[in-house]
Parts: sequence; C-alpha cells; structure tokens
Amino acid sequence: MSLASRTEDLPSPVARDTGLAAVQLRAPYLIYFGDVQDTGHAKTGLGLIQWRPEACAGQLRSDGCQVDGGLVDLSISEAARAGVGSIVIGVASEGGGIPDAWVGDLAAAARAGLDVVSGMHVRLGDFPGIAAAARASGARLIDVRTPPQRLPVGTGVKRPGKRLLTVGTDCAVGKKYTALAIEREMRNRGLDADFRATGQTGIMIAGSGIPLDCVISDFLSGAAEMLSPAAAETHWDVIEGQGALSHPSFAGVTLGLLHGSQPDALVLCHDPSREFLLGTGAGVDYPVLSVTDAMAQCLPFARRVNPDACFVGLSVNTSMFAEAERQALLDRYEQETGLPAVDPIKDGAGLIVDKVSSVTGV
Amino acid sequence: MSLASRTEDLPSPVARDTGLAAVQLRAPYLIYFGDVQDTGHAKTGLGLIQWRPEACAGQLRSDGCQVDGGLVDLSISEAARAGVGSIVIGVASEGGGIPDAWVGDLAAAARAGLDVVSGMHVRLGDFPGIAAAARASGARLIDVRTPPQRLPVGTGVKRPGKRLLTVGTDCAVGKKYTALAIEREMRNRGLDADFRATGQTGIMIAGSGIPLDCVISDFLSGAAEMLSPAAAETHWDVIEGQGALSHPSFAGVTLGLLHGSQPDALVLCHDPSREFLLGTGAGVDYPVLSVTDAMAQCLPFARRVNPDACFVGLSVNTSMFAEAERQALLDRYEQETGLPAVDPIKDGAGLIVDKVSSVTGV
Repeated sequence: MSLASRTEDLPSPVARDTGLAAVQLRAPYLIYFGDVQDTGHAKTGLGLIQWRPEACAGQLRSDGCQVDGGLVDLSISEAARAGVGSIVIGVASEGGGIPDAWVGDLAAAARAGLDVVSGMHVRLGDFPGIAAAARASGARLIDVRTPPQRLPVGTGVKRPGKRLLTVGTDCAVGKKYTALAIEREMRNRGLDADFRATGQTGIMIAGSGIPLDCVISDFLSGAAEMLSPAAAETHWDVIEGQGALSHPSFAGVTLGLLHGSQPDALVLCHDPSREFLLGTGAGVDYPVLSVTDAMAQCLPFARRVNPDACFVGLSVNTSMFAEAERQALLDRYEQETGLPAVDPIKDGAGLIVDKVSSVTGV
Repeated sequence: MSLASRTEDLPSPVARDTGLAAVQLRAPYLIYFGDVQDTGHAKTGLGLIQWRPEACAGQLRSDGCQVDGGLVDLSISEAARAGVGSIVIGVASEGGGIPDAWVGDLAAAARAGLDVVSGMHVRLGDFPGIAAAARASGARLIDVRTPPQRLPVGTGVKRPGKRLLTVGTDCAVGKKYTALAIEREMRNRGLDADFRATGQTGIMIAGSGIPLDCVISDFLSGAAEMLSPAAAETHWDVIEGQGALSHPSFAGVTLGLLHGSQPDALVLCHDPSREFLLGTGAGVDYPVLSVTDAMAQCLPFARRVNPDACFVGLSVNTSMFAEAERQALLDRYEQETGLPAVDPIKDGAGLIVDKVSSVTGV
C-alpha cells in the first residue's frame, strides 16, 4: 500500500466519460419488467417506482409478465417519442445474468437512443447486439456495478456539510430503506437533503452513486469521500450504509464507508428476529450483536474522522411482531439507548429527523 | 452487497491461468537493477536478495548502474542458459512506470523465455514489444499488483492451522519485515511456517501472494481466507499486515485482512518516533494511537473470527533512538503490555516466537 495520492485505472467498456464523477442516470425511465413472474424478482423496478415515481414514465412488459408496477405500458418506440431517457432493468434473473429473451428488447431500446441501465453482474457491452445498437445511436450502456474509472485514495480531511450514515447489525436490515425514508422526511420538512447511494438498487433510485462493494479496496474511503463531497453547512447527505462492522465477510467495506463518510449522525438498523448473521459460510453461526454493542463498536471509528459523530436513532424491522409486542420492543430499545426507535415502514422517520435536528441544530 | 457466494471477473491481460490460485513466481530469479542510481530506488531487489538469497541467481545492471546487490552479473542469454525462471524488476522508477530504457531489456528476457515479474502500476502486457516477445516464447508476464481473477466472498468459517498476523499503528511501520523475521525465526527452530504476502514486494519475496489493496472490496476477507488456506494444526501462516484500523484511508483493507486471516496470534508494529499518521490529506493530522489503544481496538475484531486470538508481542522501530534510550523504551512497552517488545532488525524475533510457543503450544 503506497502512500502517494493515486488513482485507479480499471478497464471499463462503458461510462468512459464519467471521469471523476459518479454514475449519472438520465431520466425519465422506462422500467423493464420482461416476463417476470413474481414481485420478489421485480424489487428493483418496484423500488424505483416507489421512491422515484416522478422519474418513471412507463413500464415495458413482455407477454406473460405477472407484475404490474402501476405505470402506463409503453412500447420502445412510444417511449422514445415520449422523451424517455433510459430503459432500466427492473428485474433480477436467476443467476444474475441477462437472458436471451431480454437482449432483443434492450438492443431495440439502445437502437432507439435510450440509455440502457443494468445492475446485473454481467456487463451490457459484452452482448454484441446491445453494444452495436448503442454504438449506432450514441446511447450509453450503464452498468451500475461498474465504479467510476478513477478514484482517489481517502484523505481523512474534514469536508463542510452534514452527513448521516445508516449502519447495521447485519446485511439486509433496511439501511437503504431507512436512508431513503430519512431523505424523504427531511425534504418534506424543507431541509436540503440528498440520498447518497452505495449499492446498485440505491444507485438506480438516486440516479447516481458509487457501488462501494465493487471498488478496489485501496480506494474504499476515497470513493466514500467522493460520494458525499463538500457542501453547504446546512446540507445533509443521507448515505446508504453497507454490510456491518461485525460481519466477517463484508466489514472492510463497512469501515471504509464509515471513515470516508465522516458522519455527523448515525442510525443503527436492526432486525430483532434475526439471531445469526446472514451470508456466512455453511456450518458457522455468527450471533447478531446487541444494538448497544453494535453502537459501541461503531462510534469510535466514526469519531476518528468526525469528533461530533453520534447516534440519532434506531431503525427496527418489526414486521415479524404483533402490534403490542412491536411497541414494547421499540420502547425497550428507546430505554436501552436513549434514542428514538422506529420502524420506518410503519412509523416513518419523523422521530429520527426530530432527533437529528435537536442534536445537530440543522 | 448480495449474499450469495460470488466470484469476481476482472479483465486481466496476464496470469489468466492462475484461476483460483494466488500469483506463483518461477525461481530462480535474475534481479533487474537497470541503471538505478541509489539503494532507495532498489529496495525491492535488495529486499529480495536479503530475504530469498537462495532464489536469486544473478543481477542485470545497465551501464551507469550505481547499485550492487552482491550477486553475479548475468546477461539475459547467460541467465537463460543457467536456467533462470524469471526476471524480476527490482527497482522503482520515478512515477511508477516502466521507462523506455527498460522495455528493450524486458522484451529480450521474455523472448529468451524468462517470465517477467513487475510490481509497477502499469501492466507489462500494455507494452507491445514485451507482449509480443512473451507470446512468441510462451513466457508469462506477471504483474504482481493484479489479483487473481476469481476470488470468493469471505465465509468466516474457521480453518485448521495456526495463523499469525502483523498489524500496526500506521502504514509503513515494519509489518512485512516483522512477518519475514518471524517466519525465519520459526523455520530456524524447525517449525513449519510460511510467510503469506499481501503487498507487491512481499509477493516477490514469497514468490506468491495476493495484493490485498488491489482486490475488489467485496472480496477482501475472501481473498485473505484464500491466502492462508486450511493447513495442519502445527503449521504457521505468518501473514503480512496492511494499513491500520485507525487509518482513515486504508482501514477497510486492514479489517478485511484481519477478519479473513482469523489470527491466533497478533504482533503490533509501531514507530514511537512518529506522532501523526502517514499519508492522510494536506492540513489534517491524525495522532498515532498508543500501543495499548491500538491493541484494544484490534482484538475484539480478531476474536470475532477466532476466540483464541491474542497479542504475542510488539515490533518497535527503534532506529531513531540511542542504545540506552532504546532499551528503556522497549522495557516500558513490555511493562505496559506484558508482552515482549523487540526491534526485529536489531534484536531478531526470538522473544516473540518464544511467546507464540508458550501461548499457543505450537
């Protein structure tokens, strides 16, 4: 690990013009559902419609599609005439690839001048039909899993502006949802707030971002610094967290993001029904940390880069609990931590944003 | 960050045959010094000769070279006839590139069938003359900064075998040197020990390894798990540490390596003459942690993946201190921590290996 300021130069078939900028998507979107059979495989598209309805102009569904996002159905030529900027793959395939059945639709969209946006592991430019169509029309092929080409090493230099980061006791405990709910609540109150996306679905919802888990590890905190640049002192970046410091598979990403984010405010996301971490190997069970232990583990690292860092709330997944039990649980977390504990899906993020304002004055 | 077991697929012009294996170099080596003017720029080659003299068959020096590694001077044809396996670039250039003056020599070596090994940021295969020569002879072009093509996500599953990891209060505090000194001391005592390299110079010395800071961040702990695979219960992997948990630029790499290494034994490397961290941005000073604070920060993460983890010693850079002062300093660290504190350059690693044996019984 050398100490000079460096940049990485990853070969990238797409988005060569992004330079030092994060991915930037072109709205409005045509959401591609293909022939998806269930909402579980359509979460990306449905999330985009939920969180960014104003950016979703229509949906494209093949024969046999069983999902309806509630948008107007548009053909590719109708979408092009209507000024749609991008077709966004809103479905996940088994195996994470792009099935043959999609390739023709995506190539037709590219030929019609629509940017094609994918969160798949495979790259759009590796499909000759799609690549040729994009070259012919000038449309961009955007793989949101491909990080920007040139990333800096983190500096640790404090930037102006306020930052809130969601952290968690595990993967998949609502860090993205919580950040989006907080951004929405802040905006509803007239605060100047931007959701900052660090994963593929978040990037599609935000229209920009950096896929932190795809970044070369030497540039992790530098990427996080770039993601939430210097801003006005009353501006909030609400940053989507990744992984967990206690997770033996992904904690490196979590710590790089924590250091680079320099959070003023932290929200801990937790699923009380989960006893062991998700995603570790067969035959090994890692207990999920208690909320107080998880907060105690996280805070010193946050304060290393921002002495003012503090927790402002808990976001708790209570979907597995009956109403009376649910409220008792939230009350107990509030007593244990002295912080508001909410399930943002049921309660919204109002109590957390109240606390943010009372603690930071912004 | 998805939870399924995945592999990364980085475009790589070289080492396509490594598959799931780490880089593997072919000895013996011809050390390339070019026309280097000072030992500071020849550290890689000199380190290789210091730590692996048995693998170094000769040196290649151009007119005007001011450095002598003490090896026999060999031309490329002499080296090829002598059965040399690889030419290793043992010098750093200003800017990290491969100057025109080297390209002819490296192409000639490749044409003669020698593998070419480089720790530069630029890739050997991007130089048409070198690439063509390698294609013609079948020689391999090995960029040790290029990680293996397919890496797994970390599992957290405990592997058999013993592991020692060097950690530090900062970058550049002797983590590689300390690990090499411990491996040597263990081998001298008849223990079964292997140095595991995580940076480019370490990889050249070891002949294999994974450049952790070049790995996609989602695969950090998986790469570290792969680097020190399951082994006999009396076998020691002595793993070269990277960065520092307290370093806002590089802590993600440090934590991924710590989790993936599952260390039984930890050695803290420290430079008492250093007040602030190296390598952070202009205008910001991060105090170096005390040795006790650094150990307290590290140990819970190590115990997450290996409940038996403990510190077994301190490796202290005392080069800035007079002898009396030096010994007082080491005594003070021993009192503070209850652990042996040595400068491995002056004292060797014997006291640390004594402690390893008494604590682990291996």
